Amino acid sequence: MRLNVKALEKIQGNDLMQGVLTLVFTSRYGKTLLLRDFNAAIIVTLMLIPQSLAYALVAGLPPEAGLYASILPLIAYALFGTSAALAVGPVAIVSLLTANTLMPMATLGSPEYVQLALLLAMLVGFFYLIMGVFRLGFITQLLSYPVMKGFITASSLLIIVGQIKPLTGISMVRGNLFERLHSLDFTTLHGLSALMGGLALVILFWVRSQGGAALFQTLFGAYSATLRRLLPMLLILIAALVTAGFGLQDQGMATVGKLPQGLPSLSLPSFDWSLIAQLALPAFIITMIGMAESIAVAQTLGAVKRQRVNPNRELLGLGAANIAAGFSGGFPVTGGMARSVVNADAGAETPLAGAMTAVLLSLGILFLTPWLSYIPIPVLAATIIVAVSQLLEFPSMLKLLGMNRIDGLISWLTAALVLFWEVEAGLLVGVAASIVWLLANHRQPYLAELGLIPDTERFKNINHAQTQTLEHCLFVRIDESITFINASVLEQSLLAKVADHKGLSNLIIVASGIHNIDATGAHMLTRFSQEMATAGLNLYLTDVKVPLAKQFANFKLFADNPDGIGYSSIDLYRKLAAEQQD
Amino acid sequence: MRLNVKALEKIQGNDLMQGVLTLVFTSRYGKTLLLRDFNAAIIVTLMLIPQSLAYALVAGLPPEAGLYASILPLIAYALFGTSAALAVGPVAIVSLLTANTLMPMATLGSPEYVQLALLLAMLVGFFYLIMGVFRLGFITQLLSYPVMKGFITASSLLIIVGQIKPLTGISMVRGNLFERLHSLDFTTLHGLSALMGGLALVILFWVRSQGGAALFQTLFGAYSATLRRLLPMLLILIAALVTAGFGLQDQGMATVGKLPQGLPSLSLPSFDWSLIAQLALPAFIITMIGMAESIAVAQTLGAVKRQRVNPNRELLGLGAANIAAGFSGGFPVTGGMARSVVNADAGAETPLAGAMTAVLLSLGILFLTPWLSYIPIPVLAATIIVAVSQLLEFPSMLKLLGMNRIDGLISWLTAALVLFWEVEAGLLVGVAASIVWLLANHRQPYLAELGLIPDTERFKNINHAQTQTLEHCLFVRIDESITFINASVLEQSLLAKVADHKGLSNLIIVASGIHNIDATGAHMLTRFSQEMATAGLNLYLTDVKVPLAKQFANFKLFADNPDGIGYSSIDLYRKLAAEQQD
Repeated sequence: MRLNVKALEKIQGNDLMQGVLTLVFTSRYGKTLLLRDFNAAIIVTLMLIPQSLAYALVAGLPPEAGLYASILPLIAYALFGTSAALAVGPVAIVSLLTANTLMPMATLGSPEYVQLALLLAMLVGFFYLIMGVFRLGFITQLLSYPVMKGFITASSLLIIVGQIKPLTGISMVRGNLFERLHSLDFTTLHGLSALMGGLALVILFWVRSQGGAALFQTLFGAYSATLRRLLPMLLILIAALVTAGFGLQDQGMATVGKLPQGLPSLSLPSFDWSLIAQLALPAFIITMIGMAESIAVAQTLGAVKRQRVNPNRELLGLGAANIAAGFSGGFPVTGGMARSVVNADAGAETPLAGAMTAVLLSLGILFLTPWLSYIPIPVLAATIIVAVSQLLEFPSMLKLLGMNRIDGLISWLTAALVLFWEVEAGLLVGVAASIVWLLANHRQPYLAELGLIPDTERFKNINHAQTQTLEHCLFVRIDESITFINASVLEQSLLAKVADHKGLSNLIIVASGIHNIDATGAHMLTRFSQEMATAGLNLYLTDVKVPLAKQFANFKLFADNPDGIGYSSIDLYRKLAAEQQD
Repeated sequence: MRLNVKALEKIQGNDLMQGVLTLVFTSRYGKTLLLRDFNAAIIVTLMLIPQSLAYALVAGLPPEAGLYASILPLIAYALFGTSAALAVGPVAIVSLLTANTLMPMATLGSPEYVQLALLLAMLVGFFYLIMGVFRLGFITQLLSYPVMKGFITASSLLIIVGQIKPLTGISMVRGNLFERLHSLDFTTLHGLSALMGGLALVILFWVRSQGGAALFQTLFGAYSATLRRLLPMLLILIAALVTAGFGLQDQGMATVGKLPQGLPSLSLPSFDWSLIAQLALPAFIITMIGMAESIAVAQTLGAVKRQRVNPNRELLGLGAANIAAGFSGGFPVTGGMARSVVNADAGAETPLAGAMTAVLLSLGILFLTPWLSYIPIPVLAATIIVAVSQLLEFPSMLKLLGMNRIDGLISWLTAALVLFWEVEAGLLVGVAASIVWLLANHRQPYLAELGLIPDTERFKNINHAQTQTLEHCLFVRIDESITFINASVLEQSLLAKVADHKGLSNLIIVASGIHNIDATGAHMLTRFSQEMATAGLNLYLTDVKVPLAKQFANFKLFADNPDGIGYSSIDLYRKLAAEQQD
């Protein structure tokens, strides 16, 4: 029955330094690994070129910003990060958040807007570093599963709706779903764009469908998965050739257009404290979301690859990547799910794969820019819609409602606020609602009256099993730590229990479920034990665990009556039973 | 051993209606009870006249506002409240909060200031009613013991320091402790005021001291307690007579001065939405603080008197009282600790005592106003200092530091912020810190590796007792509910435990300490059980309590493997031990 537990042993994630050194001095990073990394880099670069152009447009930036955000940041991450699979770069939701943050502050796409994006990336990088250095990664845990589901689904829907304009030419403002849909002006429909975009959309969705998958499998066998993955690039290539060949750009088809030649120049964004103050909260939120996404991706893929990722090192890597983006004409980046999966599948073994991607992309920029300008925007929009539609999780949000009503409602509330009010505000309300719900759960502890299961040493709720009880004795188990949130409710519940049992002489609180007690709880318990003494009852706490006993000692609780907290339930039961027999 | 558990039986708090009806139709509320209420009313009125004048000054209002706040509000409370002992009226800390709220909005003591105080009282009343109707009284639990200790101590110190000016004439601005002390101008010292105030202070403190108590006991025997309690009024009376006799007011001694004759006229404060928006948060805080204080007082005294108070009815009573204050020239009121204790001691048996106090105070206003004008302010200041100094709890805040470092720090942080920054802000930061600390406690669950105590059916931490364990089996107890706050940390800890035990084939999570699981926790557990299956380990959850089992069912956790959560630890231990023997 003992199987491969080794699967779970800690394996250090290789990092770039280690990779290079091993490559140079030993044969461990041999030809095979190098080839695998290179193979992954080629495929990811092919994906990354159109995606980075597209997400720059989602972020409201000129397309080259997306390319620039995919060079230095990837090298910076390779130097400091630990995950082999994580493919860093522009991603959909962070791009949406970027646009959302900057739109009220500058005209879309203006030079000030571009400058603000650099500053935002620097701030995001700074927050990542702070989180990494002070090991604050746990803060992402505030983004609960229901909140993240609701947030990502709603943001994705906003992004998809936002593609109506690039896909069809129908003009629309940015904003929440109301504003977007309300501003649609169908007279601006551009038939040719809509035709090309619609065609691309149909093909892409069909390839992802079961029918498409089956056909590819039949036609191409072992190559079908790779081919299906590269189909968007192929489509974009064909569309660009068609556009160039027929001069469609002169007939009103929007294209990527002329890109600046060459690599980005390095520059420091101007630091303006009032702008930094305005950008701080959005930057923090972008960091949280990016962090949650990246860590989840890295851990998931790390588990598949048997590589343990170090979350705090990941944060340093992502911090370096964003600061690099701020220096080199980019905008906030993070590790994207889709590209990372491809990266891992295509064989990325070390973070060197990321650095290779950056080099390949730079070569692409140097030699392909004239060709990139012909890429039609409607086809880019179609690839975004298809990619982001995978993030829509309405079915699992519905399922959640059935599993836990409140968690489900929090998920839908978050989604509704993100869609119809404001993206960041919706997220924050969702987080606040999760915390309130956690505290509310904590507020009303479950009290179980216990009895002894005959012929055992175990106690169980008298309502859930046949049990024995002792006269004049009440065993009550408290299933919660005692804190300021529940101390007062707990006192009232215990008093009510005592009042319900006439003729009681021993109250036994079974403390096996009490993990912690704070000052408010200790104060309540002191008062309660005095009340019990006044009423002539003996109060015991049994099954007190060692950490709790230490806390009792600190609070000097039961200091004059150590017996009151020293028994196990069964020993006390036997003692009281024996006393009653005498 | 069976003693007076009856002491804890529910006794309905008498309310006014019941009191009156009983008085009229039966003899239960007979002469004795009536006399006891009347006796209490006389003593409370004697305390209330100077206190209400003094607290009006703390609130920055003209003295008559204090008297007005002690008439209709008391009658309104008697009609709707349930506590016999709670003496409603102006209290020190709520008066400080009132001044703090209104000072930035209008000139101290100006007609606009008085109007704002009325509006504030109405809003406070409104919040009380909302809390009472929707049973939201539990929100006061957010004010943890450490936060309240720190807040009340610091506020009291601010009030005491604020009395330097009325006590001695030394001028000083209002504000935080820095601002107050920094603005002291000793050239404005008024010798005569300082002499009279200082003398009153020494006498009052001495009477409260052990020496004073002993002397009073010797001199007056059974009457000493009542006499000591009435001494402040006696001092004020003598001081007023001396002032009037020697015409000290003409020598620069500040006195209460001419009060308007007659009872307050009723009027509706003007409702201005922008003002209401500004006052809403402070009004909410005043409600929270007043609520916490009143409910604590009412419950403490109710326990002494064996009267169970109904917190939600209390809120309605206090809401009515504050709305009445808003109508009749008062300011926010609540149940004060000191007067309530006196009220209870002096024999108040029903809320009728409060209504009688209101009537006696009205008579006082009608016939005594010419005399009240001679009361010297320095003596009032001395009574405030002595009364409020009882609320200073620096020693118990120090003790708290030793008991629980973080709770202690939260208490001192709250106090420091209230003193040196801003009263309300300090309180809010304290509450936020308490919640963060609660969540942080929740974040890192305690994991205990268990072994069987030989010859019993009980398991204990292998580090805390001599226990037996099974080869290839690991029993781990999780001492915390599984929520979004700790799900990820927990998963990592469990994986680390598994990695630490080579050759494991069964992982048993003892769930006796898990009270709840939320969607994030369920999601983690699903993933974790897949990871265990991949690694070839059997995963069990034992001792799953009934409420948790229901949650598992809702989340469809272990739906395909009910055995995985059906065992008790001992049964599974025996089964696994038997399998190993085969």
